[in-house]
Amino acid sequence: MWEVLVELDRTRAGLTDQLTGALRSAIGDGRLAAGTRLPSTRNLAAELMVSRGVVVEAYEQLSAEGWLLARRGAGTTVAATPPRPAAQYTPPDPPRGPLHGPAGTGARATVLRPGVPDLAMFPRAEWRRAYERALRTARDADLDYGDPRGAPRLRTELAGYLGRVRAARLDPDELFVTTGAAQAFGLLAAVLRQHGATTVGIEDPGSPGIRGHLTAHGLRLVPVLVDADGLDVGALAASDAHAVLVTPAHQFPTGVVLAPRRRHELLDWARRTGRLIVEDDYDAEFRYDRDPVGCLQGLAPDLVAYVGSVSKALAPGMRLGWLGVPPDLRQSVLAEKAAADLGGPVLEQLAFAELLACGGYDRQLRRSRLVHRRRRDALIGAIRRHLPQARVSGVAAGLHLVLELPAGVDDTALAAAATRVGLGPVPLSAARLGPSPPAGRPGLVLGYAAHSPDELESAVRTLAGLLDA
Amino acid sequence: MWEVLVELDRTRAGLTDQLTGALRSAIGDGRLAAGTRLPSTRNLAAELMVSRGVVVEAYEQLSAEGWLLARRGAGTTVAATPPRPAAQYTPPDPPRGPLHGPAGTGARATVLRPGVPDLAMFPRAEWRRAYERALRTARDADLDYGDPRGAPRLRTELAGYLGRVRAARLDPDELFVTTGAAQAFGLLAAVLRQHGATTVGIEDPGSPGIRGHLTAHGLRLVPVLVDADGLDVGALAASDAHAVLVTPAHQFPTGVVLAPRRRHELLDWARRTGRLIVEDDYDAEFRYDRDPVGCLQGLAPDLVAYVGSVSKALAPGMRLGWLGVPPDLRQSVLAEKAAADLGGPVLEQLAFAELLACGGYDRQLRRSRLVHRRRRDALIGAIRRHLPQARVSGVAAGLHLVLELPAGVDDTALAAAATRVGLGPVPLSAARLGPSPPAGRPGLVLGYAAHSPDELESAVRTLAGLLDA
Repeated sequence: MWEVLVELDRTRAGLTDQLTGALRSAIGDGRLAAGTRLPSTRNLAAELMVSRGVVVEAYEQLSAEGWLLARRGAGTTVAATPPRPAAQYTPPDPPRGPLHGPAGTGARATVLRPGVPDLAMFPRAEWRRAYERALRTARDADLDYGDPRGAPRLRTELAGYLGRVRAARLDPDELFVTTGAAQAFGLLAAVLRQHGATTVGIEDPGSPGIRGHLTAHGLRLVPVLVDADGLDVGALAASDAHAVLVTPAHQFPTGVVLAPRRRHELLDWARRTGRLIVEDDYDAEFRYDRDPVGCLQGLAPDLVAYVGSVSKALAPGMRLGWLGVPPDLRQSVLAEKAAADLGGPVLEQLAFAELLACGGYDRQLRRSRLVHRRRRDALIGAIRRHLPQARVSGVAAGLHLVLELPAGVDDTALAAAATRVGLGPVPLSAARLGPSPPAGRPGLVLGYAAHSPDELESAVRTLAGLLDA
Repeated sequence: MWEVLVELDRTRAGLTDQLTGALRSAIGDGRLAAGTRLPSTRNLAAELMVSRGVVVEAYEQLSAEGWLLARRGAGTTVAATPPRPAAQYTPPDPPRGPLHGPAGTGARATVLRPGVPDLAMFPRAEWRRAYERALRTARDADLDYGDPRGAPRLRTELAGYLGRVRAARLDPDELFVTTGAAQAFGLLAAVLRQHGATTVGIEDPGSPGIRGHLTAHGLRLVPVLVDADGLDVGALAASDAHAVLVTPAHQFPTGVVLAPRRRHELLDWARRTGRLIVEDDYDAEFRYDRDPVGCLQGLAPDLVAYVGSVSKALAPGMRLGWLGVPPDLRQSVLAEKAAADLGGPVLEQLAFAELLACGGYDRQLRRSRLVHRRRRDALIGAIRRHLPQARVSGVAAGLHLVLELPAGVDDTALAAAATRVGLGPVPLSAARLGPSPPAGRPGLVLGYAAHSPDELESAVRTLAGLLDA
């Protein structure tokens, strides 16, 4: 019996380890039942033709671990340990996917799905060089537990970069490196809740992904309508929102830019009420017709928390984001970040600092902007050719556009039909939260960053066929 | 005036950007006050000797961003934006430092400070190769939003590794890659709170760092005494703890191993009451006298959550940890992890999978074990020579040992005196939570992993001098 249960490979060293492991797994999977009495060390050694010491050591090890019970005078028996329970269900798809896109969907780069960049453009060679340099030049002390806000060098580079490119005014002391924008929103949610602020204004239409994320953090959402000038600040002021989440540079999904007058109304609201503006600068690097509009945070660093990430410019899988907070929130965000994870991985932070410092990030943005612009133009051309009844809205920016459809079209049904044939548009009505049935024109949010002009053309042709059907 | 305020460098391109940036920062730092009326575009262009288009574009950009107000017929004025508030305080040291060590201290590798490995031993070349391989072989889709639990390849490698080395029985489906052990504890705390379980038993003595961390997550702590056999399960059963956090392989700080009988009592408690055991396997790879005792989780995967990290074997700055949970907690931990950050950075996860697969992690552990063992021996030798009145307790394992001091010695005062001369021992009384004044013998927790035998010898000599003083 024991020779079958315990197959030893005499050509390999470590007979004790082999015996220990074999007995452990026989107990673990139930082949050796609880209560089974084991042979004496002498007998088992004889049967397996190993020295007695091997068996003695294995029994001792397994007794110390709790697999065997050794009772003086009563020999050694198998302890009661349940076998590893077999998985009783098919694991469902875990939640995943971009915050700026459909909630809880798969992350496949389906044609026309918004929120995903072209992952083939990830600058592998440049990133490898930056990482190598970071690894080579890091001091030993950099590998220790560090500042929970992130590597000081990256926070300094990032504050400079965001000042230069986004006109942000960030003090590295108030800048946090986060695990993507998702963690930044989570930290802010926790700090708001701590201050008793549980109601947050969100743009309507807005991102279903963000809505799900904030709700998961225990916040109650108040939809605030977006018009051609961006968020309706009057409606916000009339609500009981303790904070507001806005996308001023390129509203998601409509693509409108928050108008200058609205910017000041919004800042006035925050100053007057002591409430917080959260600026989600999610794709502001991508503007194709002119310089991007500088961020709101730069106008009033004491009123605005600023959130960004490399998800659109490099890749979402980097999980590298940032959060700049007003000085009076610094301590509570720091405590939350330390409680969350004591800070993020340092080597990729230093590599990103290298990439910023050597201009590699700027180069990558320039390359992506060119490609995105061509793809946007291709998508718009295809729409003109195949969907002349539809209208494209929003400024020339970002990684998606909004296709407004003739009144009466059921955009949810159209998107569902498109999904069935492998496309990924998001119906505009899914982006709306407000009064039901959803107000406003039907439409589709279409991503164009991840696919070639030909793929986009063919996708639009398919869409037109579905609309005619 | 304007020429001084706006210094343009005519040798560089991008005069519009230069003018925009210069005006923005003049407004931002208060040199251009709110309400100031700007010259007409024609006049400013003449004064700066640039084309009028440059000024028009700059004014338009800054108006769109909200820095300037352009009123038809009323010219362009500076909008009200407060200058960046000057930092009004000296930033205090952020919380940092190992969970298994003093809470909230700096992370300097002070001689004798427990919880920190030798960062000079980080295998830079091997890690570089693993990272390069991961970067080269990753598919584009790997760079997308992924499974919040972590890269499937790493979870599979890790489950195999922990099965082989720690006798854990982990299903990759129930294994989460976390931002260090800190995030693993945070996720568990959130899930426990969700189930209304807010009271957690902790070992006494135990880690002040862990205590602070769990408290920050809203858990109430119940100290449970540790004796020579480890946690007193009878005392735990008599408490109202909804869960318990244990270090069975090498208790922190005492260094005792949880006895076989206690292991079964503990599992019985969990099975009988439906409560959760959290196993913190924090330095189990380092045992110097024999094979490490296998983990508790392998005995009962349905009762035990398992936490580990690379912090001791590679470096804490990697922030790479893991959490294995019983099947019935899988869904709630998954929801928490997705809410926390949608998952961690993928490239270092793939690199760690490479390192595990090619045996590099095992090699690193073997190298570290040899070095640690020599350092431990050196520390013990120095203690015998210079502190013959003290006693070393705990098994030959880990990165620290406990020095028991003669009754009557004030270990807090001794540790404070040692800190003043640059040493980092932690007083045993700081590790105790129980009845005040602290019960038990005075002592010091001494780390030895990060320093050479000579440094350790000299540190112990200093300590002896302080004890005699």
